[in-house]
Amino acid sequence: LKCYKSVSEIKKRVDLAVIVIPPEFSNKAVLECAKKGVKGCIIITAGYKEVGGEGAKREEELEKIVKRYKIRCIGPNCLGVFNPSSGVDTLFLPVFKLKRPEDGKIAIIAQSGAFGSVLLDLAADSGLGISKFVSYGNAVDIDEADLIKFFGNDKETKAITAYIEGVKNGRKFLETCYKVSRKKPIIVLKAGKSSKGSEAATSHTGSLAGKYSIYKGAFKQCGIIEALTIEQMFDFSRILSYESEIKGNRVAVVTNGGGFGVLSTDAIERNGLNLVEFEEEVRKKLQKVLPNYAKVHNPLDLIGDATPERYRGALEILMDYEGVDVILVVALMQTASMNSQIIDIFADLKQEYKKPFVVCMAGGEYTRIHSSNLEKLGIPVYPTPTRAADSIKALYDYWNWRRKHKNYRSNHQNFNY
Amino acid sequence: LKCYKSVSEIKKRVDLAVIVIPPEFSNKAVLECAKKGVKGCIIITAGYKEVGGEGAKREEELEKIVKRYKIRCIGPNCLGVFNPSSGVDTLFLPVFKLKRPEDGKIAIIAQSGAFGSVLLDLAADSGLGISKFVSYGNAVDIDEADLIKFFGNDKETKAITAYIEGVKNGRKFLETCYKVSRKKPIIVLKAGKSSKGSEAATSHTGSLAGKYSIYKGAFKQCGIIEALTIEQMFDFSRILSYESEIKGNRVAVVTNGGGFGVLSTDAIERNGLNLVEFEEEVRKKLQKVLPNYAKVHNPLDLIGDATPERYRGALEILMDYEGVDVILVVALMQTASMNSQIIDIFADLKQEYKKPFVVCMAGGEYTRIHSSNLEKLGIPVYPTPTRAADSIKALYDYWNWRRKHKNYRSNHQNFNY
Repeated sequence: LKCYKSVSEIKKRVDLAVIVIPPEFSNKAVLECAKKGVKGCIIITAGYKEVGGEGAKREEELEKIVKRYKIRCIGPNCLGVFNPSSGVDTLFLPVFKLKRPEDGKIAIIAQSGAFGSVLLDLAADSGLGISKFVSYGNAVDIDEADLIKFFGNDKETKAITAYIEGVKNGRKFLETCYKVSRKKPIIVLKAGKSSKGSEAATSHTGSLAGKYSIYKGAFKQCGIIEALTIEQMFDFSRILSYESEIKGNRVAVVTNGGGFGVLSTDAIERNGLNLVEFEEEVRKKLQKVLPNYAKVHNPLDLIGDATPERYRGALEILMDYEGVDVILVVALMQTASMNSQIIDIFADLKQEYKKPFVVCMAGGEYTRIHSSNLEKLGIPVYPTPTRAADSIKALYDYWNWRRKHKNYRSNHQNFNY
Repeated sequence: LKCYKSVSEIKKRVDLAVIVIPPEFSNKAVLECAKKGVKGCIIITAGYKEVGGEGAKREEELEKIVKRYKIRCIGPNCLGVFNPSSGVDTLFLPVFKLKRPEDGKIAIIAQSGAFGSVLLDLAADSGLGISKFVSYGNAVDIDEADLIKFFGNDKETKAITAYIEGVKNGRKFLETCYKVSRKKPIIVLKAGKSSKGSEAATSHTGSLAGKYSIYKGAFKQCGIIEALTIEQMFDFSRILSYESEIKGNRVAVVTNGGGFGVLSTDAIERNGLNLVEFEEEVRKKLQKVLPNYAKVHNPLDLIGDATPERYRGALEILMDYEGVDVILVVALMQTASMNSQIIDIFADLKQEYKKPFVVCMAGGEYTRIHSSNLEKLGIPVYPTPTRAADSIKALYDYWNWRRKHKNYRSNHQNFNY
């Protein structure tokens, strides 16, 4: 590759600069880029606000350059961006250690670089596609609100998930999220909730993590779905990017393992969802497709000898049944009578009906082959009933918020500051 | 294989009968076994108490046979047993669908057959060894308390984990668990917590799931560690079977990713554990093994360019430091400076020090190779800081209970019935 001493030596136009030199020289490089007319730069270099002292001064200086020359910056102290469809990849981590995910519908925003890299690696490993990834570090210019706004207008993105330690500008963040949430879901994992966790966040990305209770309230107001764990970031993103509107919170559970029916019921009740009783007419229909030793109620136990065809029979009835808004289907693949036909049946249901359904499949390799095939069809699959029920709750919360805020105008009156 | 019309035709002694014929004939088969002098039988057959009506009568009849002839029974309506060291395997599920785990130290008890099969499959898939597995279904004779007592005396078992919908005999269960908990940990996932979940449990295994609050109190009294999810059943079993005593709740966090340090801190505080401040002397020692741009506090961020040797330096100091009882080590393998040497370092620490430590490694294939190698060395590894911190809490709760109950006599006075 041809190298230059300085960006000013380059004759052609430069679209993007990626700064990876030591902090003593990084501001100078940004300044040269700005003077040259480079539109955007990503500053990977660390040693800014997060280290205090000299670093804090360095960041102030950088901010002045950025403002004066209006060059848009991601970073410093970040990993940069990854875009599977265009191939742009500023991550400085080797591919054999950190796999890159395929093209998909979920945008990932991570303040922390290491955290972001783990998210990418996990997404790639579980076959989850992403639209774009941004690690934005200290956010000297572009912050979480800018990114959420951008992804709100990005056609390749159906859901946005973000790891946030602290929000830079509360009002801007709230207003942006309120607008975007009315178009597509935003899922946020907030770190630095505890008092010591908040201190740790300050020395990590120089963020003021602030009071968690305030964040929690703000998230609710602007339709953000909060993830409490890394697993939930993905679990909620999947259901919210695959499924369209859910009309209410009335859940039916269909299972071939009684214990999983009990655990599903516990998780549904804990989430405040409604495990409805089936009406007499539906019970009669269901009884016809079930063996005579099966009892019809909700959770509906298809019994351990259930075949894929028995699933089809029961699920078609529940899909047509207006008393139910969503179905949690437990399909344990370990039993003798279960086989790969179940995939075709779920695929048919997904195509024929609009009613959302999620699948719970728990187990090892044989199970995983089936669950990853369902994911490719856009059906969310979860490894435990708890995670399936929590995800249904996220879907319900989002659409419930969106319906309520359908006719609101996005202005200050919507928020209790 | 030579077949017989009836067990009474067999001339030789029979140790164990496995009953897998339809329910109309199963009691007669048990009776024949009892008369022949067979010591134990496993009744896989379903169609007993759990279906009500005829089934309930069938179960009463079975109970009479069992009591009269003193034949010990597991089941009915169960999967039976699996013992990796002896090879006894009564599971009627094909191995390609349900892998069997290797020999190990954790005993699994599951009332639900389907649930038990998933646990086995998950254990096999994650390389977790088990000592024995029992699915006991309706518990006409041998119940959860009998099994816990048995595993309490089983030399191959270091920790017992159980999935329970309802306890048959509360007093017997409490007293057994109290005694066993003083020798080895018991981890229980209780299903049927909600009112509808409790109803579902009744129609599943005919159990009276009872009030959850009563169970919760009872578990606490007799030292049972409660798992709230399937993941926690394994997470807690691993730390409790690998690690020996933990002296207190003072935690140090060491990480190469700042965000994971923040999340660890949140999870430690949520669990009521103590993220101690390091004393001046220790801080000085730590500063010597760290680069000058690293700040020394807890969580200790070794910075993204941390090498395995830097981990060794910091961890040796914290292992020697008496102000800390346990270390949560986050080791993200995605960075350029991390490599497989980290395994040797953790192995050395495990051998040289008694202080417990857990590792958090998050990521895809490259990460998994390392975490499964650590598991083989008896070091518990978790995929998220939350799960690592929750597991430390389980270890602390167990040993805290055990120290308090060291000198108690096991009698009724210990319980508030």
